[in-house]
Amino acid sequence: MRTEKDCIGERELPDEALYGIHSQRAVENFPISSERLHPLLVESLVEIKKAAAMANQQAGTLDRDKRDAIVKACDAVLAGNYRDAFIVPAIQGSAGTSANMNVNEVIAHLAQKLTPAVFVHPNDDVNESQSTNDTFPTAGKMAMLKLLPDLLVAVGQLTQTLLEKANEFEDLIKVGRTQLQDAVPTTFGHSFHAYYSLFKRDLERLRTAGEDLHSVNMGGTAIGTGVNTTSTYQHRIVPELNDLTGLHLEVAADLIDATQNCDSYVAFSGALKGLAVDLSKVCHDLRLLSSGPQAGFNELRLPRQQAGSSIMPGKVNPVIPEVVNQVAFEVIGKDVTVTMAAEAGQLELNAFEPIMFRDILANETHLTNAIMTLINNCLKGIEVNAESAAERVEQSAITATILAPYLGYMQTTALVKEALADHRSVKELLREKHLLSDHQIETLFSPASLLHEPVTVANH
Amino acid sequence: MRTEKDCIGERELPDEALYGIHSQRAVENFPISSERLHPLLVESLVEIKKAAAMANQQAGTLDRDKRDAIVKACDAVLAGNYRDAFIVPAIQGSAGTSANMNVNEVIAHLAQKLTPAVFVHPNDDVNESQSTNDTFPTAGKMAMLKLLPDLLVAVGQLTQTLLEKANEFEDLIKVGRTQLQDAVPTTFGHSFHAYYSLFKRDLERLRTAGEDLHSVNMGGTAIGTGVNTTSTYQHRIVPELNDLTGLHLEVAADLIDATQNCDSYVAFSGALKGLAVDLSKVCHDLRLLSSGPQAGFNELRLPRQQAGSSIMPGKVNPVIPEVVNQVAFEVIGKDVTVTMAAEAGQLELNAFEPIMFRDILANETHLTNAIMTLINNCLKGIEVNAESAAERVEQSAITATILAPYLGYMQTTALVKEALADHRSVKELLREKHLLSDHQIETLFSPASLLHEPVTVANH
Amino acid sequence: MRTEKDCIGERELPDEALYGIHSQRAVENFPISSERLHPLLVESLVEIKKAAAMANQQAGTLDRDKRDAIVKACDAVLAGNYRDAFIVPAIQGSAGTSANMNVNEVIAHLAQKLTPAVFVHPNDDVNESQSTNDTFPTAGKMAMLKLLPDLLVAVGQLTQTLLEKANEFEDLIKVGRTQLQDAVPTTFGHSFHAYYSLFKRDLERLRTAGEDLHSVNMGGTAIGTGVNTTSTYQHRIVPELNDLTGLHLEVAADLIDATQNCDSYVAFSGALKGLAVDLSKVCHDLRLLSSGPQAGFNELRLPRQQAGSSIMPGKVNPVIPEVVNQVAFEVIGKDVTVTMAAEAGQLELNAFEPIMFRDILANETHLTNAIMTLINNCLKGIEVNAESAAERVEQSAITATILAPYLGYMQTTALVKEALADHRSVKELLREKHLLSDHQIETLFSPASLLHEPVTVANH
Amino acid sequence: MRTEKDCIGERELPDEALYGIHSQRAVENFPISSERLHPLLVESLVEIKKAAAMANQQAGTLDRDKRDAIVKACDAVLAGNYRDAFIVPAIQGSAGTSANMNVNEVIAHLAQKLTPAVFVHPNDDVNESQSTNDTFPTAGKMAMLKLLPDLLVAVGQLTQTLLEKANEFEDLIKVGRTQLQDAVPTTFGHSFHAYYSLFKRDLERLRTAGEDLHSVNMGGTAIGTGVNTTSTYQHRIVPELNDLTGLHLEVAADLIDATQNCDSYVAFSGALKGLAVDLSKVCHDLRLLSSGPQAGFNELRLPRQQAGSSIMPGKVNPVIPEVVNQVAFEVIGKDVTVTMAAEAGQLELNAFEPIMFRDILANETHLTNAIMTLINNCLKGIEVNAESAAERVEQSAITATILAPYLGYMQTTALVKEALADHRSVKELLREKHLLSDHQIETLFSPASLLHEPVTVANH
Repeated sequence: MRTEKDCIGERELPDEALYGIHSQRAVENFPISSERLHPLLVESLVEIKKAAAMANQQAGTLDRDKRDAIVKACDAVLAGNYRDAFIVPAIQGSAGTSANMNVNEVIAHLAQKLTPAVFVHPNDDVNESQSTNDTFPTAGKMAMLKLLPDLLVAVGQLTQTLLEKANEFEDLIKVGRTQLQDAVPTTFGHSFHAYYSLFKRDLERLRTAGEDLHSVNMGGTAIGTGVNTTSTYQHRIVPELNDLTGLHLEVAADLIDATQNCDSYVAFSGALKGLAVDLSKVCHDLRLLSSGPQAGFNELRLPRQQAGSSIMPGKVNPVIPEVVNQVAFEVIGKDVTVTMAAEAGQLELNAFEPIMFRDILANETHLTNAIMTLINNCLKGIEVNAESAAERVEQSAITATILAPYLGYMQTTALVKEALADHRSVKELLREKHLLSDHQIETLFSPASLLHEPVTVANH
Repeated sequence: MRTEKDCIGERELPDEALYGIHSQRAVENFPISSERLHPLLVESLVEIKKAAAMANQQAGTLDRDKRDAIVKACDAVLAGNYRDAFIVPAIQGSAGTSANMNVNEVIAHLAQKLTPAVFVHPNDDVNESQSTNDTFPTAGKMAMLKLLPDLLVAVGQLTQTLLEKANEFEDLIKVGRTQLQDAVPTTFGHSFHAYYSLFKRDLERLRTAGEDLHSVNMGGTAIGTGVNTTSTYQHRIVPELNDLTGLHLEVAADLIDATQNCDSYVAFSGALKGLAVDLSKVCHDLRLLSSGPQAGFNELRLPRQQAGSSIMPGKVNPVIPEVVNQVAFEVIGKDVTVTMAAEAGQLELNAFEPIMFRDILANETHLTNAIMTLINNCLKGIEVNAESAAERVEQSAITATILAPYLGYMQTTALVKEALADHRSVKELLREKHLLSDHQIETLFSPASLLHEPVTVANH
Repeated sequence: MRTEKDCIGERELPDEALYGIHSQRAVENFPISSERLHPLLVESLVEIKKAAAMANQQAGTLDRDKRDAIVKACDAVLAGNYRDAFIVPAIQGSAGTSANMNVNEVIAHLAQKLTPAVFVHPNDDVNESQSTNDTFPTAGKMAMLKLLPDLLVAVGQLTQTLLEKANEFEDLIKVGRTQLQDAVPTTFGHSFHAYYSLFKRDLERLRTAGEDLHSVNMGGTAIGTGVNTTSTYQHRIVPELNDLTGLHLEVAADLIDATQNCDSYVAFSGALKGLAVDLSKVCHDLRLLSSGPQAGFNELRLPRQQAGSSIMPGKVNPVIPEVVNQVAFEVIGKDVTVTMAAEAGQLELNAFEPIMFRDILANETHLTNAIMTLINNCLKGIEVNAESAAERVEQSAITATILAPYLGYMQTTALVKEALADHRSVKELLREKHLLSDHQIETLFSPASLLHEPVTVANH
Repeated sequence: MRTEKDCIGERELPDEALYGIHSQRAVENFPISSERLHPLLVESLVEIKKAAAMANQQAGTLDRDKRDAIVKACDAVLAGNYRDAFIVPAIQGSAGTSANMNVNEVIAHLAQKLTPAVFVHPNDDVNESQSTNDTFPTAGKMAMLKLLPDLLVAVGQLTQTLLEKANEFEDLIKVGRTQLQDAVPTTFGHSFHAYYSLFKRDLERLRTAGEDLHSVNMGGTAIGTGVNTTSTYQHRIVPELNDLTGLHLEVAADLIDATQNCDSYVAFSGALKGLAVDLSKVCHDLRLLSSGPQAGFNELRLPRQQAGSSIMPGKVNPVIPEVVNQVAFEVIGKDVTVTMAAEAGQLELNAFEPIMFRDILANETHLTNAIMTLINNCLKGIEVNAESAAERVEQSAITATILAPYLGYMQTTALVKEALADHRSVKELLREKHLLSDHQIETLFSPASLLHEPVTVANH
């Protein structure tokens, strides 16, 4: 065991530990769950350390040997090694200091190990010109940005799949339903196109909300004034980081603001929540439309993914939409968590970023995964019970709506009531009552007319 | 116009205004909405003023003339007069000081008006031995308790109505559904009895949560230490209040705690939220089960309450469950508001009680009203499409579950698949395949057997 | 009394009632609260009726006399008359049918009254080519858009006021605080500029979220297929509406989607929630920084708005930030309500728009009013206790951070600990220990250096 | 590889896999996160399987050999082995069928492996007389109940620690604060006793909410009718389970209700949320009272747990309260998730139990752990800056409140204003103005009087 000291006292650490006393104390202080810091937060912090070393060397405040030692250590971690050394919990107090210090300590120890001739100090060298308060939020945004492309691809594929289904089902007529009651006809093509249109907007909102995440407060250090940085460093740190990551980050115009305010997390979480709401709505629809197979709507056939019951043989359930609904509830709940954490920020810093980052990163990943299983294990294989759906339109009394401009609302109402009460078709009643000619009836009740596609009706 | 002074400065007030400068400032400071303080908060504060005058006179710190003048003024307000004088907004800063001072001012001015010979000061006399910080939360709890009986009656009637429906529908068999897919049979009686059982628990939870509201911090004054009260007052104030209101209030054991902590509001709001969740679930069910009338589940017929569409003649919608669902969403949202307001309390006082009281009182009333319209305009008149529901059971392949103990899960699965694929009945297949005797089949597939009522099946 | 009939039965109505049987039934069915439909929803529906009459006449499906009678009735309502006739509750089932029918009925009756020679039917004429399902959401968006400019003006004034304060306080130094613990110095100017920057982004987000609200589904009628409309009407309805209102509405590209999906409400509510979170954070700060006046931070003096206590003479409280915090909690709670209502939408329509519209409209108004009282009754009059704030910087041990690049993190830590333990100043210790020259000390600890303004430090 | 079949088709599985085709499909269908089913859910399901085997054997529907084989397999798992075989994800569709089937499959395979002579079928034998719909919710409740004692112990220790601190600080006077402004004096003892009182109620509420969890629906099978069970089994299953676990479970009176309704989860989650709110309030207080050390309230000294900053040497932050605040936000957010999942239940089953169980179990554990670190790493070591706190009381102008009964509210207001404006003490002004005798002043301003402890004041 070796001993390390800090301003509080001492701690014994395993000789081989790359982390240091600060990391060890965080583990002791925050034993909430076994979940560690998100790997992308670690990776992003390491990239920041590397970029900072480059910038500090250019500023003349870090000598080349130290820079090289730090860069070498960072590269080793970025190559995927030593990940066990990042021991601090995901749910942590300290506003991310434990996360930042874990990285500082590991990089310093690793620099020492890989370049024994050079002494590297976690605070004075690895953390030079930085503070947790600029590195941690920057790393948080970087991690969110790194997960975003996969999510955008997933939503993009979702829209694509829905559009394909809309085209596939373009001509398949069905009863529309408002307030769960039979309404005028629509098509399965319309329904899937509506979903397509919906998620197209989500895609746009996610992109917009993602834009704000590019604005980072690197160079602001402790509270945004940039104390303990140099002008050269300030000019170089973000370009170096962009060279390294390709993330197109930009330095915030107001670093004080960028250090303390969490509105961009709230907005991004809100966009994720919006996506969750829409996924949940659509999955409710899918479950409803595939209900049955005998005593339900039974309009859609979802792919059969697994046996549905341990006791009821032959039952198959809409398990994919069900899991998506649950992810949606989770994302919506986590949005409340993010909202409360942001709202609780005080003065020059929000101390509750760790829970925000954890929840937003989880939401991005869970939504991406939920969408991909929805596409591949459900949407792509959906089939329509076209014949029975069309029959229902044929029988539907509410198609009489088409008559209202001719017979008026009240007379049409009476017709619908009679049809429903006597289990007769509206067309039959119309003929019997000689209210319209056969030709008029056939024209009005043609699918094209019912769906309001361009159609000519005499006497109008 | 007359002029009043306070520690800030002066304000002109209409000569006839019963309120004073403090109330006027609150109106100017909090122009959020036109909603004024809840009438029951006003009433309860006035009751507190009356009880305090009684107790203070007994303590010898308020002379009889002042007491009589204050009591006379309070009685006038309690009789329903002068309610226009309570002008302060429902959404107010000041932790309720504006509410308390509005009442102090009105009672003082009214005492002056009704008993001109006696001078009564809003702070020194009407508010004697009190602080906003004990009167306002006490009034809040009193108002909640005053609304609670109506809610309990409503939930009680709800359970009663559901039980009656459960009895009415006891023998009516239907297809059960899990995950919206056809499952083994149940009865409409079972379904309504399950709702009955559910709301019975809500009733209990509401009562339990209501219990805590009886503990009040009267006598604690500013922060719970009871500064500026007398021992006699402290002993008398709550008994006087109980004599006046019959509310069975009790003095909290820890007045410091009772002054600053809002957990009992959170718990009560939580019980209201629980009720909302349950109402929403049941109303979703009602809308689903009455979907159609042709292209839906169409098992229940809800009373027809209003024409359903401005364009689709003859359409009728489940408008009562719909409004209940919306009240539920409102209550659940307001529970988040209450939660955040409680969480934001600091040190010796929570400054955010006004929004908590407003939202909880609204939730109680809206839930009561929602339940009453649900009972009277929907539940009582619900009818069952018994014949078609029973037919569906007859046709349901999933009734084959009853065979699993005899044929095993896998063989039964094959049967169900075959029945569904070929649109044939399971009983027919069983006969064809000679898997069971006719008698066994009839016994197993009898309603009693399918519903697992005591039944004897041979060979078991 | 007169009698009206509908598909359910009959109702007696007062002879003079402009509303009809549908409105009356809605009042009976939805007795949740006394709150009626928002006036801007009524106004917008009436504008739609007028525009529809214009468009229908152009399409040849409504004759000129009827058009004129409808337009005359609409104009009378738009001029502010007959508002008592709109009796349906804000919280309503029916997906807005009650709202739409209330307007149809009033306009029809009023047309009859004002133009007795012409018969106008609520459904066949006033509602011609329309459905609740396109008029109600369109009216909802119109109402939101009508309230938006006031909110944008309020947020704009908020940023302007904050910027003025930032300039006013530009040179006033203070202790920064992270995690509520003393940190490196900042200025009051920085703090208010950070708030300014924050709300600038909210302004942008509100504008972006407002954009989506311009896309309406007029012409889609019942479910978006546009059944019972004419081509001419479809081309004319939105231009007519824009002529009337100047709102720059656009017809949605996918009317099926626009009829059933509520994502734009969720996004708009989310932007309002984001604003609420930011207001709440800033108001928490204001309350904290003005805490005291003796036993608190006491850095800011908020304008004294009203006596703070009924029992503690001379106490003044931060009542304006307190009311803003509460509005924020309310808005955040209502965002959950909107989220749940949107998530619960099913198939071709979301039946829960009434509660969404009510809550979003309330949020817009409450936020606008909260911001205006914050500006006028608080922010504008804020003063700084500049001298004592500067003194605290002078005494602050954490200013030693500036030494870290010279002495290293560990030695500086030891200095800070010693300074705090012995209640001595860091500068004094530095001199005593001869760690830096007097000139170096004065330069490093100058405000410019501590604030990291461009400054030259020797030996660096 | 071996091949298994189900009603969907076939799957290749590793020869040594104890799980089967159903589990494998679940892994493929629900790739949301790497988190597997909670170990206590697995354990509880295994206990149910064992109890069911015992009960089925007693009922005569399972022969002794099969029972023994099943029991042996269960015991092996309960001893802690084979846990890798439970592969299904925590976030899963299927209403828990995947969880139940994973256990059925593992126990069946393991029985086969450990007792090769006996054939055990996952559905027909291991799952005999059961359904996912009774085993999964029962296991959920069992898991919650198993975590509850630790939480109750933690809350109990929390109250104990707070009471000890209340006693330790009993005589230490301090300025009270309402709305963050100086108010009448209190003691640190009062403050910590108020926290004690608060958590005592949480303890009670948790116990009450936990009671409901004992009511389980074992024996109800698919939807609560108990199809495919025997009378003997129904009588024996819960006693067997209680023998095994000591959990004091009870069979629900209405099994239909108990199968479909999730109100007891909502209530339990609500009690956890209430605890979270209270923890958050107290931790906000701790952070506020320890703010400084120089430019803040600086009344409490929290134990120094770790270096506070990577850049600011010597800074120490309240990291333990910070992590507790974040856990509270997490729990509150998850309560929204649970609420939405419960609200979305439909008809005979709620398909969203998996997310509810996951979130409630996480909340219990996180709260327990958060409380323990709060006790051990913060509360126990808290110290008071007694001297400076007492000095502030001495200087506080608001102590003049004590004069109001003697001088009246308005004259006292003038005194306080003068004292604050001129930075003079109220006592000094009183003497100067000869408003009270020296003796009266000393008596009134004694700590006992200010704190309203029994004290005799002349002239009263």
